[in-house]
Amino acid sequence: MQNVEIGVGQVKVNDGFWNRRIQNAVENVVPYQWRVLNDREPGAEPSHAMQNYRIAAGLAEGEFQGFQFQDSDLAKWIEAASYSLIYDDSPEIRAALREAIDVIGKAQQPDGYLDTHYIIKKPDRKWKEIAHGHELYCAGHLLEAAVAYRAVTGDDSLLRIMEKNVDLIRSVFGKGEGQIDSYPGHEEIELALMKAFRATGDRKYYELAEYFIENRGSRPAFLEEERFLELSGQNRWLEADYHQAHAKLRDQKTAEGHAVRAMYFYTGAADVALEKNDPTLKAALDTLWKNVTGRRMYVTGGVGSQGDGERFTIDYDLPNDTCYTETCAAIGLAMWALRMLRLDPDVRYADVMERALYNNVLSGISEDGEHYFYVNPLMLKPDVAKYRRDHESVEPERVKWFGCACCPPNVIRTLCGLGSYVYTQRGGDVWQHLYIGNEAVLHTPAGDASLSTVSSMPWKGRAQIVYHGPSGVTLHLRVPSYAKDFAIMRNGEPVSLELEQGYARVCPADGDCLEVSFGMDAQFVQANPRVTEDCGKACVCRGPLVYCAEEADNGTLLGDFTADLAEPPRVEERELFGGITGVTVSGTRSDMAGWDEDTLYRTAPAARVPASLRLIPYFLWNNRGLGEMLVWMNAR
Amino acid sequence: MQNVEIGVGQVKVNDGFWNRRIQNAVENVVPYQWRVLNDREPGAEPSHAMQNYRIAAGLAEGEFQGFQFQDSDLAKWIEAASYSLIYDDSPEIRAALREAIDVIGKAQQPDGYLDTHYIIKKPDRKWKEIAHGHELYCAGHLLEAAVAYRAVTGDDSLLRIMEKNVDLIRSVFGKGEGQIDSYPGHEEIELALMKAFRATGDRKYYELAEYFIENRGSRPAFLEEERFLELSGQNRWLEADYHQAHAKLRDQKTAEGHAVRAMYFYTGAADVALEKNDPTLKAALDTLWKNVTGRRMYVTGGVGSQGDGERFTIDYDLPNDTCYTETCAAIGLAMWALRMLRLDPDVRYADVMERALYNNVLSGISEDGEHYFYVNPLMLKPDVAKYRRDHESVEPERVKWFGCACCPPNVIRTLCGLGSYVYTQRGGDVWQHLYIGNEAVLHTPAGDASLSTVSSMPWKGRAQIVYHGPSGVTLHLRVPSYAKDFAIMRNGEPVSLELEQGYARVCPADGDCLEVSFGMDAQFVQANPRVTEDCGKACVCRGPLVYCAEEADNGTLLGDFTADLAEPPRVEERELFGGITGVTVSGTRSDMAGWDEDTLYRTAPAARVPASLRLIPYFLWNNRGLGEMLVWMNAR
Repeated sequence: MQNVEIGVGQVKVNDGFWNRRIQNAVENVVPYQWRVLNDREPGAEPSHAMQNYRIAAGLAEGEFQGFQFQDSDLAKWIEAASYSLIYDDSPEIRAALREAIDVIGKAQQPDGYLDTHYIIKKPDRKWKEIAHGHELYCAGHLLEAAVAYRAVTGDDSLLRIMEKNVDLIRSVFGKGEGQIDSYPGHEEIELALMKAFRATGDRKYYELAEYFIENRGSRPAFLEEERFLELSGQNRWLEADYHQAHAKLRDQKTAEGHAVRAMYFYTGAADVALEKNDPTLKAALDTLWKNVTGRRMYVTGGVGSQGDGERFTIDYDLPNDTCYTETCAAIGLAMWALRMLRLDPDVRYADVMERALYNNVLSGISEDGEHYFYVNPLMLKPDVAKYRRDHESVEPERVKWFGCACCPPNVIRTLCGLGSYVYTQRGGDVWQHLYIGNEAVLHTPAGDASLSTVSSMPWKGRAQIVYHGPSGVTLHLRVPSYAKDFAIMRNGEPVSLELEQGYARVCPADGDCLEVSFGMDAQFVQANPRVTEDCGKACVCRGPLVYCAEEADNGTLLGDFTADLAEPPRVEERELFGGITGVTVSGTRSDMAGWDEDTLYRTAPAARVPASLRLIPYFLWNNRGLGEMLVWMNAR
Repeated sequence: MQNVEIGVGQVKVNDGFWNRRIQNAVENVVPYQWRVLNDREPGAEPSHAMQNYRIAAGLAEGEFQGFQFQDSDLAKWIEAASYSLIYDDSPEIRAALREAIDVIGKAQQPDGYLDTHYIIKKPDRKWKEIAHGHELYCAGHLLEAAVAYRAVTGDDSLLRIMEKNVDLIRSVFGKGEGQIDSYPGHEEIELALMKAFRATGDRKYYELAEYFIENRGSRPAFLEEERFLELSGQNRWLEADYHQAHAKLRDQKTAEGHAVRAMYFYTGAADVALEKNDPTLKAALDTLWKNVTGRRMYVTGGVGSQGDGERFTIDYDLPNDTCYTETCAAIGLAMWALRMLRLDPDVRYADVMERALYNNVLSGISEDGEHYFYVNPLMLKPDVAKYRRDHESVEPERVKWFGCACCPPNVIRTLCGLGSYVYTQRGGDVWQHLYIGNEAVLHTPAGDASLSTVSSMPWKGRAQIVYHGPSGVTLHLRVPSYAKDFAIMRNGEPVSLELEQGYARVCPADGDCLEVSFGMDAQFVQANPRVTEDCGKACVCRGPLVYCAEEADNGTLLGDFTADLAEPPRVEERELFGGITGVTVSGTRSDMAGWDEDTLYRTAPAARVPASLRLIPYFLWNNRGLGEMLVWMNAR
């Protein structure tokens, strides 16, 4: 049964929770980021990304500025802006896209080469800095952008540019005579090539992706003359495992190194495994999946426990205050989960995908849409975060834009492309993974079908799905792991549930209305006792949302509160942020009358008094100014 | 009432707990360190300290090797070796001391200059690198050594060398025409000058110390041409506050910067305050004392919360795993406490002095006497300590000797000079701060008196003190803060207690036998709720000792244990390490049957089972191989 790629234009999100965020992204952030990319936004650090292309195209004078991967910021914006047209077919954004693509085309060299950093600054170093040069990374993002732009607009101008670029890369890299036999320093192009393959059917994209995935870990690591292993040995955080180049994928048993790189690698590998129909590759990915989600993932769906190297560390090492948990890494985890669902529609992948999207991804952007977190810690003490060296990668508040601006455009392309996370399809079988309101048109062997979902998630476990289309389509509706009393009504009649890997199967007829409902208790969650940082603690989750306590609701010294696990968390509707479901937990606090400010230690037990903490969804933290925040509370 | 300096030779420790440690230091470590200092010890990193002096003296060829403060290692050894003669008047050590002093004398330049780093390596940079050069630091340690050597042997050969050196320093530094108006980059010489002043009565030593103490914080910081403030601004951990040069002492309200520097500074300042009889200086020191002991000190007497800068951070910031808590800083805290006791015999100073000595100082050295901790964390997970960047200053096990060998000789001089911490004296009033067995001869206005103490500390609160001497002497016996039912019997008759600042006053007659007794419960101790890292936790203390759990007794996952505060810790005698008082606490552990290795999160409450932890005194940790260690346990 053939996997079917659901094009991003086929699913338009229309949802009470997400609309406001998507609308903000579409109407404000996409234009805002365009201004930033053109250095026209006051108060934001100049990006120089468009200017680099103009210089490379001979349309402007000047030096390359920014990181060596600055091109990718524009690429991610093109992808996001293309998706934004689904929601608002803005002539200004269409014009901006054409302007960007026009400049990119003019910057492209006759042989197809396209990286402005090397065109402007280091023309004699092209394809000579494989480990850190990011040429293939930027090409990957541009290729994703090209596929997105064509899918939404039908215009293949950027895809033609990128095909020429890929043809150059195919000639440069490979196992043939005179070719560079290597793999990208930062994975990304693999998954982009697989998108291009699915969009065009041209196997040259697949073949290059398959080569990069399967070749990774071979020696030499990158170019012999880069002396990579020798030089990287001087910084243990940047050795071969940082690049997932310490072994072949099939020999990797643990997720290592730079978390974003790892997620993009596994995503591309899962794409290849699906096309290759290779169970050993799938098994290798499942080993890594188990390691990531079973030993190295925060409850928020964050990955990457350490700022130095922005990387994975060791099993069960999940510090809550000094973690990296980069927004882009959580996006990568969601991307990987989506590919695993295409390989194997099992609810455990969907549970993680949803966890990442509703928590560590969404926390990356402020409610006003213009402030961003790179790093998403699970606790914050502002004075400690500002002072301590081991907190130096933690920003205590979201900032407008980053010198290294990978996260902001990545969040925006994820929001604008959210529709692609809702479904996967194989022939006439359609899996609905997320109960996000949307209008979808699906092409099935029996004919086109439309699905219309209205949802109350994440606040209530209720969704109504209306089907129009031929018979012969099977819907697989996800039963989330947290769902209580999951039920489906079909045109008002209960459906007897038949579950397969956590999905309930329904074969709808034209016009059927399916009502999905399930309870979502606010629940205390505990971590494996092997996670030292969470021992003696609990957090609260409700449905897909992780909750946190903030100083704005509770004052300071959040760490002193001890939750009473015997008292179930109480749900409360709050007006905050346009209406949220809050949670209150009961417990105790120290009686501070027993503690003067200049006494550190006393004999136990110190008196405690009843207290409660008001919690809000984690993704909303730091929208009310600087203050303490805590996910894992002491608990008894 | 005049403070009386009790010479180190006047108090000989003879104590069931300390003898073995002192004997090991005297018989093994002092000779061992002499071999290390002469690069003759296999397996230890070569020190090169003696060789540097030989080269400077023209007795050998070669380059300077080691840190710029390498000279101080030899100086600390001379001090320790001098004290060791009190316990074992070894001809070999006497000969080694004479050899060292002979070479030092030959290395001294005609004008009195003596720093081998500058003599050999940077002769044109003498007195030009005040901030980091350590010339005054090394001179300070040599001056301390000279005073110690003369006190024990009567030989003033090193003191004459150092007087000439001090005369040079007096000519170089000061407020006069052509002088450098500054202060040391690393405080130390101030307290050494005060020792020399008390040993010789020559006010030139006092005057220089007073100048350095009072001048500190003036501008420019160090030499104008060092551009110190400008350059140090590039590393926030090495700015003026690192050197306690951010303000004048009287304007410093919090302990800042490098913890050893701070402790040595305050120690010298307290010495000066005593001689100057300046209550404003005492008040400034009390402000700092309150800040250190009330907001910035670990329960072990450790200070310095961060490895970067080896420094103080902010109030209540006391991470247990990434702390620095350098052995030398705890020694410095004990030194400072002793000076505060001379200024103001209040038990709160003695409680801290004892806490530092029995915990963070003693943990610096292994039971075999030849392995040392620089850093003394309050918890260790070996895999995390080995892996994580923020643990890179933590050694998971004691090592033989350090490239930067400040701690080992510092511990040894403290052990061999322990007698100097037992008493302070003002005229005919003698305060006994520590119940350490010893034989002391004190010179009082009424005539010489001898005190002989036999003690069961730290295992039992019992000490017998026999007095021989004139009447007119008043003994002030410390009532430790942890003592229960403190009582004194005089020749078998109860003494009615008259307490003054935590000391019981007794006026003994010749031949009196005073029996001191008090209970010491093993008690749970909690930290101020402002200390986030200790919230929801407790540790166990008994008398002066802090206890810890080790993997050797309890297996792994110590962090998962939760102590039951309602169950008093149970004391048990154990054969370990020649006999110790251990402690067992009751509580619960997770039922690991409910947790497979690949599941990170589950809804609460996870099942727990009754469990207990066996604890040993903290200072003994890591004497049974690599393993987990924990001071602060989860508690309820």
